[in-house]
Amino acid sequence: MTHRLTEDAHGVYIISATPFTDDGAVDFASLDSLTDYYLSHGVSGITILGLMGEAPKLTAEEASEIMTRVLKRVDERVPVIVGVSNAGLDNLVSLAKKAMGLGAAGVMAAPNAGHKHEKGILDGFKAIADRLPDVPIVYQDFPLTTGMPISAEGFNTIVDEIPSVVMLKHEDWPGLPKLSSVRRVAQEKGSRRVSILCGNGGIFLPLELARGADGAMTGFAYPEMLVEVVRRHRAGDVDGAEDLFDAYLPLVRHEQQPGYGLAVRKEILRRRGAIKTATVRAPGPKLDAAGQEELTRLMSRLERNLAALRPAMAAE
Amino acid sequence: MTHRLTEDAHGVYIISATPFTDDGAVDFASLDSLTDYYLSHGVSGITILGLMGEAPKLTAEEASEIMTRVLKRVDERVPVIVGVSNAGLDNLVSLAKKAMGLGAAGVMAAPNAGHKHEKGILDGFKAIADRLPDVPIVYQDFPLTTGMPISAEGFNTIVDEIPSVVMLKHEDWPGLPKLSSVRRVAQEKGSRRVSILCGNGGIFLPLELARGADGAMTGFAYPEMLVEVVRRHRAGDVDGAEDLFDAYLPLVRHEQQPGYGLAVRKEILRRRGAIKTATVRAPGPKLDAAGQEELTRLMSRLERNLAALRPAMAAE
Amino acid sequence: MTHRLTEDAHGVYIISATPFTDDGAVDFASLDSLTDYYLSHGVSGITILGLMGEAPKLTAEEASEIMTRVLKRVDERVPVIVGVSNAGLDNLVSLAKKAMGLGAAGVMAAPNAGHKHEKGILDGFKAIADRLPDVPIVYQDFPLTTGMPISAEGFNTIVDEIPSVVMLKHEDWPGLPKLSSVRRVAQEKGSRRVSILCGNGGIFLPLELARGADGAMTGFAYPEMLVEVVRRHRAGDVDGAEDLFDAYLPLVRHEQQPGYGLAVRKEILRRRGAIKTATVRAPGPKLDAAGQEELTRLMSRLERNLAALRPAMAAE
Amino acid sequence: MTHRLTEDAHGVYIISATPFTDDGAVDFASLDSLTDYYLSHGVSGITILGLMGEAPKLTAEEASEIMTRVLKRVDERVPVIVGVSNAGLDNLVSLAKKAMGLGAAGVMAAPNAGHKHEKGILDGFKAIADRLPDVPIVYQDFPLTTGMPISAEGFNTIVDEIPSVVMLKHEDWPGLPKLSSVRRVAQEKGSRRVSILCGNGGIFLPLELARGADGAMTGFAYPEMLVEVVRRHRAGDVDGAEDLFDAYLPLVRHEQQPGYGLAVRKEILRRRGAIKTATVRAPGPKLDAAGQEELTRLMSRLERNLAALRPAMAAE
Repeated sequence: MTHRLTEDAHGVYIISATPFTDDGAVDFASLDSLTDYYLSHGVSGITILGLMGEAPKLTAEEASEIMTRVLKRVDERVPVIVGVSNAGLDNLVSLAKKAMGLGAAGVMAAPNAGHKHEKGILDGFKAIADRLPDVPIVYQDFPLTTGMPISAEGFNTIVDEIPSVVMLKHEDWPGLPKLSSVRRVAQEKGSRRVSILCGNGGIFLPLELARGADGAMTGFAYPEMLVEVVRRHRAGDVDGAEDLFDAYLPLVRHEQQPGYGLAVRKEILRRRGAIKTATVRAPGPKLDAAGQEELTRLMSRLERNLAALRPAMAAE
Repeated sequence: MTHRLTEDAHGVYIISATPFTDDGAVDFASLDSLTDYYLSHGVSGITILGLMGEAPKLTAEEASEIMTRVLKRVDERVPVIVGVSNAGLDNLVSLAKKAMGLGAAGVMAAPNAGHKHEKGILDGFKAIADRLPDVPIVYQDFPLTTGMPISAEGFNTIVDEIPSVVMLKHEDWPGLPKLSSVRRVAQEKGSRRVSILCGNGGIFLPLELARGADGAMTGFAYPEMLVEVVRRHRAGDVDGAEDLFDAYLPLVRHEQQPGYGLAVRKEILRRRGAIKTATVRAPGPKLDAAGQEELTRLMSRLERNLAALRPAMAAE
Repeated sequence: MTHRLTEDAHGVYIISATPFTDDGAVDFASLDSLTDYYLSHGVSGITILGLMGEAPKLTAEEASEIMTRVLKRVDERVPVIVGVSNAGLDNLVSLAKKAMGLGAAGVMAAPNAGHKHEKGILDGFKAIADRLPDVPIVYQDFPLTTGMPISAEGFNTIVDEIPSVVMLKHEDWPGLPKLSSVRRVAQEKGSRRVSILCGNGGIFLPLELARGADGAMTGFAYPEMLVEVVRRHRAGDVDGAEDLFDAYLPLVRHEQQPGYGLAVRKEILRRRGAIKTATVRAPGPKLDAAGQEELTRLMSRLERNLAALRPAMAAE
Repeated sequence: MTHRLTEDAHGVYIISATPFTDDGAVDFASLDSLTDYYLSHGVSGITILGLMGEAPKLTAEEASEIMTRVLKRVDERVPVIVGVSNAGLDNLVSLAKKAMGLGAAGVMAAPNAGHKHEKGILDGFKAIADRLPDVPIVYQDFPLTTGMPISAEGFNTIVDEIPSVVMLKHEDWPGLPKLSSVRRVAQEKGSRRVSILCGNGGIFLPLELARGADGAMTGFAYPEMLVEVVRRHRAGDVDGAEDLFDAYLPLVRHEQQPGYGLAVRKEILRRRGAIKTATVRAPGPKLDAAGQEELTRLMSRLERNLAALRPAMAAE
C-alpha cells in the first residue's frame, strides 16, 4: 500500500543526495546503493529532489528518472517526499502530479521571492493546494536561502487555511524560539498540530526535539546518528540522545556550511561506500587537499569519540 | 548564412515575450505573429528565453520548441540570441548547444548567487566559455534581479580574459556613470570595445546612447519607438530621438515596473494584435479593472502625444 | 498653534535635502534658504532627516541642530515631520521626543531587518507607539531599501492596532495595485482611512492619485510641479495634472535613480539658487562632466516643454 | 606606551559585549567588571563597539563614554580595537580619531551596501585610509550581515594598495577555503602577510588555525577556551586544542545563532558574574523560560565535559 504523508510523521526523513559520475552524469547505480544505505540505517522516510539534492541543476528528464528509480528501489518500505519548488506554478504542479503518480507520499515546496510577503506566501500555497487536491504538502521554511521569512502566526494561518499542509520543514535560523512559537500559537488558536521535522544539517536537533519537533529532515552523511538521537529522545533518554549527538557535532558543524558542506557530505558518503564518486555539479564546491585532510582528521576523531562513548553506554 | 553575434552588434534586439493561451499553454500561433510583429517593426535582432520571456516558468520541452519555432520563423532575417541562464552549468551548456545548433547567433547568461563575488563571476564565465568554444556570449548585468553587481573594471577583465564575450546587456541601476566607466576603462586598458545594448525597459535609452551604448535590448511593447530612437540617434538627430522617446516615456515607465510591467506589456501586445491573450504564467501579475483603465488612458495619451509630434516633425 | 499630523493630511510634504558646504559641514545658511524655497513653492509640509536627507551620515548633534533650525525657520507655517528610523528603539524614541518637543507634527519610521517578517514589524511598531504616546507616526513602506515588504493586509493590521499610525509613505515598487489594495482592504474591514502620500521621486504620482493617494512625500527638486499636479488632480483636472507631470517626467526619472539621483537633485537645487553647493557626503554620488552636461540638457528641454505647455493651458 | 596594531597580532581579541541595566542604560560598573573578566582570562586584546557590542543602538555620547571607560580600565595592558563602521565617512573618521586619541591600537570597519562591488570596497577603504593616516585598520569580512562578499584576490588588492590595513577579521561563511586562498594568493603575489583573526563565534576555530589563522576575534562568553585553544595550537598541541574546543562546541554553536545568540552570551556572562544583567537593547532577543532551561542544561553538560577532559589531560 502506498504511503501518504500525515501530521503524525516523525523520525528521520533523510534528504537524499544525488550522486553523479566523474563526468557529471547522474550515477543511477550509486543512487540505488545510496537508497539502500539510507534504508539500512533505519530512516523513516526519504526526501528527494531537494536543494541539497542539487535539484535546480538537473534536467527535467533526470529529475523524472531519479524519482522513478528511487521510488522503485524503496518499494514502499518508507514514504518518499519529492521536492517540487519551482519558479512556475505549472511546472511545480506537473512535477508533483508525476511524483504522486509514481507513489510519492507527499511533496515539499518553499516560498520564493515572487511571493513577496506573508500574505503572498499564503496565496501562493493556496494556489498550489488548489491545483493539487489531496496531495500532502510540506512547507519548507528556509529563509537563509529563500529570503522569505514567515512568522509563527503566518505559518499557522497556512495550516488553518490549507488542510493539505501537514508538515513543517523547520530550518529558520535562529529557529529555537520560532519552533516553540509555532507550537504555542497552534495550541492557543486550536489549530492542527502538524509534523515538524528539522533541517539545517541537524545542528540543533536535540534542542529542537526538546521544544516539540518530531524529528529531522536533513541529509547528514551519518544517518544512523540522526535516527538514534530521535529514537533515544522519544524513548525519554534525553541525555543519551544528546551525548551521541555531541560526539558527531564537529562533523555536523562541518557539513552544515552552506554550499561547501555538500562537498563534505558527498565525500563522506563516498568514503563510507554509499556512492562511487563525490562529484558536485558545477558550479559547486570541491574539496582541495587541505579539505580532504581536514575531513580525514574529523572522521577519525569521530571514531575516537564513539569508542569513548561505547563503554559509557554499555555501562548504563 | 547563419548570423553570428559580434562586437559590432547595434540597433534594437527586442526581448521577446512568450505568449500563452488562456489556460497557460504556450500559444505557438501567437509566437509566430509576435515574431512577425517584431520583424515588421524593424528590429535588428530578437532575444528569446530571457527572464521577461518567463523562461524560468517553461519546461525544458517548451523552451526547446519555442527556440525551434522562433528560429524557423525568423529564417535568418535577423540574429536571434537565446537566454541560457541556469543554476547548473551542464543545463546551461546543453541549452546553449541546442540553440546554436538550431541557428542562434549567440547566447545570453547572467551571473547568479553561486558566483558570490567578481572573481567568482569571472571564473564562472570562464567555465561557461570553456564549455562553449566559439559561441558568442552576452553578459547580462542586471543586479536588481540577480543580486550580483560587477564593477566596470570587473566587467572589462571578463572582456580581456574571455574573447567570446562580445556584448554587455547593460541594466545596472543606476547605470549611467557605470556605462561611461565601462567605455573609459576599456579605452584606458586598450581592451576590446564590445557591443553595449541597454535594458531596463529602455527607460534611460537616449542618455545611454549619448554615453556610448550601441542600442537597446529590451521588450518594450512599441518596438518601433526603440528602433526609431536608435536610428535617429545614430543619424545624429539627438533631439529628434529624445523628442520621440519622451512621447512614449509615460508608458515606458509604466511597463518598466518589476514584475507588474510584464502584465502591462503583454496587454499592450494583445491590444495591438501581436498576440491573442495577455496571460502571464502563475505566479505572475494580472491587470485588474483599474489597471486596464489606467492603461487605456496612457495609450490614448500616447496617441495624442504622437499626433502633436507629427506636425512638428513634418515641419523639420 | 503647533501642528499635529492626522489622517487628513494631503498635498505635498517635501522631503528636504540636507545642504553641506564644500568641505562637508552642514550649511545652515543654505538650510534656511532651502526651507524658504520649499515654502515659497507652496508645499503643505516638510519632512526632514529622511534617507534622502542623508540622515544616516549626520552626527546626533547635527541632526538635532538641523531639526531645531528648520522648525524655527518654518515657524509653524506648515507641519514638519521628522524621520527617526534607527537601529535601536531607545535612540529612535529619544530623537522622536526631541522632535516633538521642538514642535514637529509627527515622526516617520521604516521597518528594518531586525523585524524579520510582518508580525515582527507589527510588534516593532507597537513598541515604538507604546514608548511614544500621542505622537503621530508615519509608516514608510520602502522595501527596495529596507528589504522589508508588507502586504496591504499587514499594513491595515498596523492601522487597526496602532491608533497613532496616521499616514503611509507609499513607495513600494511595483506599488499601484498595492495602493489600491490598501484602500480596498481598509474599506472591507472598516479600518480607519489613513493618509497616503507617495514617494519614489513621484514617478507614478498621477496614477497614484487616481488610485486613492492623498498627495506626495518626496524630494523632487521642482516642488512646484508636485504641488500643482496634486492641486489640479484634487480640483478634478486629471488631464491637466498629467500633462504638467509628463513635461517633467524625463527629469523625474533622472532624479529617481537610487543613490545617483541625490547628486542630480542637489545640483538642480543649486542651479535654482536654493542651496549654495551640491555636495553629497561621502560615500556618495557626484556628477562628472558628462553628468553635468546631461542635466543641463534635460533642464533646458524641460523649459522648452513648459513653454509648449503654456499656450495650450492659456487656451483652455 | 600605547599599543599599535600590526600584522603580527595574534591570540584572542575578544569582542566585548556592552552591558546595560534593566532599564536599558549603559551599565558602566558592569563594563568595568566585564573588562576585568576578559583580562583575567588572558585575552591578547579587546575589540569594543562592534556589531555584537550593539554599537548601532548606542548614542554617540554613549559610544564615546564606553570607549573612554574601557581604554582607561585596560590601561594599556592589551591593545584595544574600536569598531567604527558607519554609513557616513565623516562620522567614521571622527569616531576613529577620537578612539586613537584615547589610546586605541587600531580601528575596525566593514564594507557596506554603498560600496556595491569589490572595486567600490577598495575605493571606500582607500578613502578611509586617506582620511586616517597612520591608523591601523582591521577589515571585517562578514558578508552574512553586510551583504558585501569579497574574493581572496580582492582582499589582497586592498592589502597591496592600503598599507594601513593590517588585519582581516575573517567571518565569511563558508570560509575555510577562502582563508586558505587569502594566504595562498598573498604568497603567490608576494603581498604582505596580515594578521587573520576569526569570528563567527569561533565555531571553526581549530580548523581555521590549521589553515593559517593567527587567532580569534569573537565574543564567546568563555574566553578562557578561546585563549587556551589558540595557545595549545600555537604550541603544536593540535589535538589537545581541538579536544578542549569540542567540549565547548555545543555552547559555541548555541551562542553563534545570529541575533538570538547575543541573549545567550549575555546570560552566560551574567551567570558567571561578569555583568549584572543580561539586558539586550530593543529591538533585540530575550531568553524565555525554555531558553533559560536550555542554557542551564548546556552549561551543566559543559561542566561534565570539562570534568571528563581533566583526567585525560592530567594523564598526558
